[in-house]
Amino acid sequence: MSARTVIDILELAGLYVFATSGALMAVHQRFDVVGIVILALLTALGGGILRDLIIGDTPPAAFTNVSYLVIPLVAAAVTFFVHPVFQRLTFTMLVFDAAGLGLFCVTGTLKALDFGLGSLQAVLLGITTAVGGGVLRDITARQTPALVQVDTDLYSIPAAAGAAVVAAAHHTALPMPAVATAAAVAVFVFRIVAMLRHWTAPRAWHRGAPDNAPD
Amino acid sequence: MSARTVIDILELAGLYVFATSGALMAVHQRFDVVGIVILALLTALGGGILRDLIIGDTPPAAFTNVSYLVIPLVAAAVTFFVHPVFQRLTFTMLVFDAAGLGLFCVTGTLKALDFGLGSLQAVLLGITTAVGGGVLRDITARQTPALVQVDTDLYSIPAAAGAAVVAAAHHTALPMPAVATAAAVAVFVFRIVAMLRHWTAPRAWHRGAPDNAPD
Amino acid sequence: MSARTVIDILELAGLYVFATSGALMAVHQRFDVVGIVILALLTALGGGILRDLIIGDTPPAAFTNVSYLVIPLVAAAVTFFVHPVFQRLTFTMLVFDAAGLGLFCVTGTLKALDFGLGSLQAVLLGITTAVGGGVLRDITARQTPALVQVDTDLYSIPAAAGAAVVAAAHHTALPMPAVATAAAVAVFVFRIVAMLRHWTAPRAWHRGAPDNAPD
Repeated sequence: MSARTVIDILELAGLYVFATSGALMAVHQRFDVVGIVILALLTALGGGILRDLIIGDTPPAAFTNVSYLVIPLVAAAVTFFVHPVFQRLTFTMLVFDAAGLGLFCVTGTLKALDFGLGSLQAVLLGITTAVGGGVLRDITARQTPALVQVDTDLYSIPAAAGAAVVAAAHHTALPMPAVATAAAVAVFVFRIVAMLRHWTAPRAWHRGAPDNAPD
Repeated sequence: MSARTVIDILELAGLYVFATSGALMAVHQRFDVVGIVILALLTALGGGILRDLIIGDTPPAAFTNVSYLVIPLVAAAVTFFVHPVFQRLTFTMLVFDAAGLGLFCVTGTLKALDFGLGSLQAVLLGITTAVGGGVLRDITARQTPALVQVDTDLYSIPAAAGAAVVAAAHHTALPMPAVATAAAVAVFVFRIVAMLRHWTAPRAWHRGAPDNAPD
Repeated sequence: MSARTVIDILELAGLYVFATSGALMAVHQRFDVVGIVILALLTALGGGILRDLIIGDTPPAAFTNVSYLVIPLVAAAVTFFVHPVFQRLTFTMLVFDAAGLGLFCVTGTLKALDFGLGSLQAVLLGITTAVGGGVLRDITARQTPALVQVDTDLYSIPAAAGAAVVAAAHHTALPMPAVATAAAVAVFVFRIVAMLRHWTAPRAWHRGAPDNAPD
């Protein structure tokens, strides 16, 4: 398979898993079927639309490639019927979200590099692609985005690591399809382990004086 | 009147009614005059700016056509003085919102078709144009967007139906001004009846096991 | 110094102070180090990215000029270590936010004029640039945006005044570097005094009937 084909497959897989995470959150919040479709589309397409607007690739892929619409709709329909299989909706949602995080930080970084952005900028855009859909999902469903939750397990750190590996490998002779796939899997595993082990990043030091308490 | 003129009139009417709905929510939330102007502009212009960024028509119409700024400002000023006439602010706000929904799902779809997007994509963009401003209004005013409320009456379904009718008619010899106007009115009536009769879309099935309760 | 250099310095100063305000809110909310970096970047870059997308200058400066990333990262790191110096985090955050408001309403208006927008549109875009990052910061951190808070002190009025002065001076022979710097300082002072004196804008009149109460 060509590099292009592998990247495309990773992107389509990312659409499917992110759409599923959005649909599962909608089911969990007891939204109706319309809410399920909307959260599925928003989660799957939000990060990529943001990425395409920023690099100036308009209309975004979501509005030119019909697979970008059909795949999230299929994921929403499947979730609608299959969700009772999952005993723990929140955890299952987070697993699908982790898969999307891994896939989109890789494909987002690669597309930014293709459009001539510098390495640091491509990494930032890769992270934006990966976390954008989930943040829009959380804001729309009125959840605190995992990105900035207090005492959250590591979320954007795995995406940043994956994006950095891809950007670094881009300047080497390493085969990109293998690097991209490995990075996506590694980010997924990193995120899942961070959730299970409750790995957290350090917080800023507080004196504990009452005037520092949230007010 | 030419087709272009009719579409322009529908668009300007949409700006007026959406701005009024934003201003009424600001009055209802007891925001000050600045908050009223901001919510009026955001509700009226948000969906169209999003649409124009996505199709790559920059700067968006809101920043090139001065009517796009003047009309929402007039609507905000009128609402500021006239609102005590309305006994029920929330209901009145929803009526103006329904009118905007009907007008913008039609004009958004037509603009997307004009820019060469496919039918399915044009429908999605029409819905985005119609619901975008209202979602931004609700998020900024910290309301749960009607789009995803639990047990909400139908909101995006009427917009989707109107957008689909317009996209279908686009490939026929039907006169677009008449189709566009009829579709906008039909969406408005559909949405109002859905509110009054509390029509809802089906929700996903839950076993009722406690682990499926929101946690 | 050339006019361009002065504007660039104002822009970079705006990035630093807005990033600091974002980092301080993250510290105050007890977010971890990742949350601090994200809120710093979002607050500093959000308004400018929105401005650049709207005028069609893609990729936005934030993704082409590496200073736009380095400066907020430095501000986040400095805040992480230095914040215990500040006795009152919220007030300090608002002071940095006021500085960013002044700087970005000026640079945003000038960039819009450079890209050929009309005066009214340039003023609106200047306000958008100035308030955009702060609104994204507040929504992401689940605060009510200062923009629309009930009984808020004046926030967007100073930004609108500064943007209007810059747009008016643009058509005169006045030296822009001096005008821009003076306008930025005046907006900062205006906002700070408005906070200390609790200046508010008028609210819409309510009859006080119970059906007008928020419901």
